[in-house]
Amino acid sequence: MNKEVRLRLKRLRTQMERAGIDYYLISSSDFHHSEYVHEYFKARQYFSGFTGSNGTLVVGKNWAGLWTDGRYFVQAHRELEGTGITLYRMQEEGVPDIPQFLQTQMKQGQTLGFDGRTVSCREGRRLEKALEGQGISLMVGQDLAGESWQERPSLPCYPVSLLSTGLSGKGMADKLKEIRKALKAAGAEYLLLSQLDDLMWLLNIRGRDIAYCPVALCHGFVTMTQVYVFLQKEAVTDAFREYAQAEGIIWKDYHEITNFVAHYPYEGSVMLDEKSVSYSLYSLVAQRAACINRNNPTELLKAVKNETELERIRQVYLKDSVQLIRFIYWLKKKIGKEEITEVSAGSYLDRLRSEAEGFLDFSFPTICAYGENAAMMHYQADESRDCKLEAAGMLLVDSGGQYMGGTTDVTRTIVLGAVEKEIKRQFTAVVSGMLRLSHSVFLSGCTGRNLDILARLPLWELGIDYKCGTGHGIGYMLNVHEGPQNIRWRYSQEIKEEALRPGMLLSNEPGVYQEGSHGIRIENIMVVQEDKKTQDGQFLAFETLTYVPIDREAILLEELQPMDRKRLNDYHQEVYQKTAPYLAEEERKWLAEVTAPL
Amino acid sequence: MNKEVRLRLKRLRTQMERAGIDYYLISSSDFHHSEYVHEYFKARQYFSGFTGSNGTLVVGKNWAGLWTDGRYFVQAHRELEGTGITLYRMQEEGVPDIPQFLQTQMKQGQTLGFDGRTVSCREGRRLEKALEGQGISLMVGQDLAGESWQERPSLPCYPVSLLSTGLSGKGMADKLKEIRKALKAAGAEYLLLSQLDDLMWLLNIRGRDIAYCPVALCHGFVTMTQVYVFLQKEAVTDAFREYAQAEGIIWKDYHEITNFVAHYPYEGSVMLDEKSVSYSLYSLVAQRAACINRNNPTELLKAVKNETELERIRQVYLKDSVQLIRFIYWLKKKIGKEEITEVSAGSYLDRLRSEAEGFLDFSFPTICAYGENAAMMHYQADESRDCKLEAAGMLLVDSGGQYMGGTTDVTRTIVLGAVEKEIKRQFTAVVSGMLRLSHSVFLSGCTGRNLDILARLPLWELGIDYKCGTGHGIGYMLNVHEGPQNIRWRYSQEIKEEALRPGMLLSNEPGVYQEGSHGIRIENIMVVQEDKKTQDGQFLAFETLTYVPIDREAILLEELQPMDRKRLNDYHQEVYQKTAPYLAEEERKWLAEVTAPL
Repeated sequence: MNKEVRLRLKRLRTQMERAGIDYYLISSSDFHHSEYVHEYFKARQYFSGFTGSNGTLVVGKNWAGLWTDGRYFVQAHRELEGTGITLYRMQEEGVPDIPQFLQTQMKQGQTLGFDGRTVSCREGRRLEKALEGQGISLMVGQDLAGESWQERPSLPCYPVSLLSTGLSGKGMADKLKEIRKALKAAGAEYLLLSQLDDLMWLLNIRGRDIAYCPVALCHGFVTMTQVYVFLQKEAVTDAFREYAQAEGIIWKDYHEITNFVAHYPYEGSVMLDEKSVSYSLYSLVAQRAACINRNNPTELLKAVKNETELERIRQVYLKDSVQLIRFIYWLKKKIGKEEITEVSAGSYLDRLRSEAEGFLDFSFPTICAYGENAAMMHYQADESRDCKLEAAGMLLVDSGGQYMGGTTDVTRTIVLGAVEKEIKRQFTAVVSGMLRLSHSVFLSGCTGRNLDILARLPLWELGIDYKCGTGHGIGYMLNVHEGPQNIRWRYSQEIKEEALRPGMLLSNEPGVYQEGSHGIRIENIMVVQEDKKTQDGQFLAFETLTYVPIDREAILLEELQPMDRKRLNDYHQEVYQKTAPYLAEEERKWLAEVTAPL
Repeated sequence: MNKEVRLRLKRLRTQMERAGIDYYLISSSDFHHSEYVHEYFKARQYFSGFTGSNGTLVVGKNWAGLWTDGRYFVQAHRELEGTGITLYRMQEEGVPDIPQFLQTQMKQGQTLGFDGRTVSCREGRRLEKALEGQGISLMVGQDLAGESWQERPSLPCYPVSLLSTGLSGKGMADKLKEIRKALKAAGAEYLLLSQLDDLMWLLNIRGRDIAYCPVALCHGFVTMTQVYVFLQKEAVTDAFREYAQAEGIIWKDYHEITNFVAHYPYEGSVMLDEKSVSYSLYSLVAQRAACINRNNPTELLKAVKNETELERIRQVYLKDSVQLIRFIYWLKKKIGKEEITEVSAGSYLDRLRSEAEGFLDFSFPTICAYGENAAMMHYQADESRDCKLEAAGMLLVDSGGQYMGGTTDVTRTIVLGAVEKEIKRQFTAVVSGMLRLSHSVFLSGCTGRNLDILARLPLWELGIDYKCGTGHGIGYMLNVHEGPQNIRWRYSQEIKEEALRPGMLLSNEPGVYQEGSHGIRIENIMVVQEDKKTQDGQFLAFETLTYVPIDREAILLEELQPMDRKRLNDYHQEVYQKTAPYLAEEERKWLAEVTAPL
C-alpha cells in the first residue's frame, strides 16, 4: 500500500512541476465543508493512505507532511509508515500549523496550489494572510489531485425528493421571508449559501448524496426577489421541476455556480458564512461585491423546530425507542447463551431499526463497543476488530436513524454481567448528571455554557471529566449534528454563543471514558420548551424525547439523591407507559421489571 | 433647593457662554472612574439636585437633561422636580443615550464641553466618534462646573501608609517584574495606570481619600526601568519618601500627571485601560504614542491573593464572623423586649465591628433592612426613613469591614418572629443554592458563568430570579468590589471572561427580592483553592471564609436534599468550632443551639 502511496505522490509531483506549483495542499473537505464527505472527496486519503476523518496533506518537491488532530495521532503514525510523509501533530507544543509552516518554508516567488473549492473561505484567507506580502502566489483553480487520481469514484448524484408541508410544517416562501428580513437587518442584499443541510431545509427537499445525511450536493443564491438553486442535472426530477416552477425557484446546474457568482450584477453586499462557503466562491464574490461574513441566517431558523416537525419528531422518537428496547431485551436474554459479537449485535440492532415504519437510513454508523472498547468515543467495530460479548461488564450502544419525520440519536450502556462497584459509582454519576440537566429550569437567555455543569458536576466530584461537549443540536430528517446551539462549558472569545430557544433539539450525553478499562455514555434527546412565566421572566425547560430504560443494574442506590431517584423512577414509568403498547408480551413483562421504581 | 439648582445652572450657563461652549456635560466620576467618589467630585449632584450614585447631566442654553439608570428613576424624578431638568431614563425604549442625543441636537460649528479628567477614555471616545464628522468640536480642558461651584469641598488628601511585606506578602519589585512581563507579551513599553486600588496594590501603600476604600488619589506610569508615582504633596510622608528612595520610585505631584504624559519621550506603545484612564490623559498620550487598550495587568495579579494575604484574610474573616455572631445573639435576645430600629441595630453592629482587633473602617455602609425594605437591594436606612423592628418576619443585614489584613463582606437574613411557609421555602432555596455553589468542584478553566446556575437553580425552580450577579471579587484591604472575576450567568460578547484561579476571592450571595413583601440574601465569601488533580486535569474548589450561622428557623427541612442538609450541618459544626473560643459563655451556649445538626 505504501509503495502505492509513493507512486501516487510521484504522479502528483509531476503534475505540480508541469503547473509551476511548489507546494500543493489537499484538504479533507467537499465543496460545502460538510461533516461527512463522499468518497469522491477523499483525495487526501488516496494520496497519503491516512483514513481518519480530519487531516490535511501538504506536498512539496522532496517532502510531504500530514496534519491531523489528537484523535488520530496513533492511527496516522501507523498508516503513514513507509509513505515518507511526515506527521504533524496539531496543537502539540512546538508543532506549527499549516500557515505557519508554509510561511517559514516557502520562498519569495514560489507558488502554493490547492483546489479552492475544497478549502473553506476561512482557511483560504488564513493562508492568504500568512503568505501575502512574502511574495508567494496562490494558485487555486486546479484540482491537481483529482487529475492524477486514476480510480476516483464519480461525484454522487441521486434524485432529490420533495418534503410536503405536512412534513416540513413551513413552506419555502415563509422561510424566505424570514431570511430576507435577516439579510436586510444585516445590510445585505444577497445570501450565498453552500451549507447543504441549510439548503435542504430552505428548499424543503432532501437528497441522498452523502452517507447518513439526507442531502443533495447543492448551492443557493438568494436575492430580495429570486432564489437560484444549483443542483446536478441528474438530481432534478420532474416533480422538482414542477415544484421549482410553482415556487419560482430558478434552477441551474450545480457546476454553474462558479460562473454565476463571477458574473452576477451585484448591487449590494453579499452575506456568506466563511466556514461553509469555499475560498473559490468567496474570492469570486469578493472581487465584485462587499462580503458580510456571518453565520447563515438559515442555521438558527432551521434549529428552532416548528410544531409540525415536533409532532413528527415525537412519533419518530417513540418508534425508535421501541426498537432499541427490543434490542436490549434481546441482548439481555441471549447474552451468555448464544455467541454475540460487537458486529453481530450492531447488525441485529440495525435490522430492527430498519424495520421500523418510516425508516430511511441510519443517522450515523452504529457504535457497539464492549468493555474497554467503549473508552474510545468513536469506536467502530468491523470484521478486522470484532469482539465477542461475554456475560460480564457493559456494552455501549450509540445509534440513530433517519426517518420520514425525524432524525434520532440515542446511547445506552447495557449491563451484560458483573460490574465493579467503582464503575457503578461512575454510572450512577452519569445518570444523575443526565437527569439534572434534563430537569433544569432556566431563564430565557441562557446558553448551553450556563447549563453544562449540571450534567458534569457529579463526575467532576469524582475527579472525572469527558473531553467533549455534553450536547449537540440535531437536525430534522437532516444531519445528526447541527448548530448553532450546543451544551459545552469551555469559554472561547471567538465563538458567539446562541441562547437556547423553544423548539431547539439537544442531546444530553455525559459519559466516562477510561482508557484500557471501560466507557459509559447515556444519551437522551430533549427539546427546549417554554416553562412558567413569572414577574422575573420567561423560564424554559426540556421535554425528553427518548424513552429507553436506563440500566438499573449499574446504579448504586445510596449514591442517588432523592430528587434524582424520583426523576429516574418517573422517567421509567413514562418509558413503560409510552412504549409498552408497541411491545410483544414477553418484552412488555421484561420492561415492567426493569422500569419498576427503585 | 430647586430654586437653588436653577441659580447654579444659570451661573454655569454664564460661564459656558463666556467660554464659547454650547453644551456642557457633567459626569459622576472622579479622575479615576472609581466606584465610590469623594464629595469633591459631586458636581453633577450640585448642579442637578439628584443624589444617586450614577447619573450624567448635560446642560444646554435653554435646556438641561439628566441620564440615569433603572435603580434611580423614581428618586431622580422626585429630586429633579422644579429644577427644569428633563429626566432621561437610560435603557428605556425610545430614550437616546447621550452620544445619540447630542448627535441629533447639536449643530455644525457648535462646541461640547466637559472636564476630560472626569470622563473615561471609553466614554470620551464614544462622544468623539458620535460628533466627529458633524463639524462639532470638543473642548475638554476646562472644569467649568468646578469654577462656578462656590461651596465646593477641597480635594481629599490624607497621608499614605506603607504595607509591610508581612502584610502584602510580595514586594513591589516582584510585582513590577510580572507587570513588565505582561507589557512585553502585549508589545507595550509603558503602562499608564489610573485605577486607584491597582496602584495601592502595586505600590504596597494604602490611603484614606475615599470613604470605605483605603486608597489615595494617585496615578502611575511604569516603564521597563522606572516607576513614576503621582501623589498629592500632603499625602507623601517621610516614611513614604524613604520607601520611594529605597524602591526607586520617582515621586511627582498628583497634578503633574497631565504635563508628564504630554512631554514624556515615548519610544514604544503605551498600555492603558480605557475604563479607568481619563479621556484627557488618553488624548495626550494618543497624540504621541500608540495606545494598547487592555485590562490593567495589575487587575488579575491583584485578584489572585498570595499565601501571606490569605493567611491574614482567614484570621480577619474569623474575627469579623465572631462580631456578627455577637450581633445576631444580641438581636435575638432583645427583639420584642427593647425598642430596636434598623438604624439602631445597624449602629450596634457597627460598634461591635469597630471594636474588633485591627479594624480600620467599614468596607461599605451597613445595610439593615427590615421586612419589605429588604426587597431593595441597596436600601439604606437613615433618620428620615427608619423602621422599628418587630418580633415578626426577617431582618436582612449586609455589612463588612476594612481591617489590617483584609476586607470583609457578609450578609445574613435573620428571623425575628413568624415567617410564612412560602417565604421559608424561598429561604431554603437560597441556602441550597449558596451551599451547592460553595461545594462545587470544577475543572481549571471554568469561569463564573459556568458556575452561576448552581446557586440560582433552586430559585429558578420556584420561578424566582435575582437581578444581579451571584458573586463579585473582593479586595485585600482594598475595595469590597474588584474584578476581573465574578459569578454571573448572562452572556455578553463584549466582556472577556476570566477563568477562576486559586487565590481569587468571591462572594456567594443568591437572594430573593419581592417588592412590597420581603427580601432574602445570604452571603459567604469563598477563596478558590486547588482540589484534586487527576488524569482529566486540575480540579478547583472553594474554601469558605465566613463563619456565621444560617438561620435554621427559616429552613423547611423537607425541602433540603440530604446532600444540602449534610453540608449545612457540617458548616454549622465548623462555625461552632472556629468561633466558640472567642465568645462569652452565654453567646457560646446560644451558638451551640443554633448550630446543632438539623
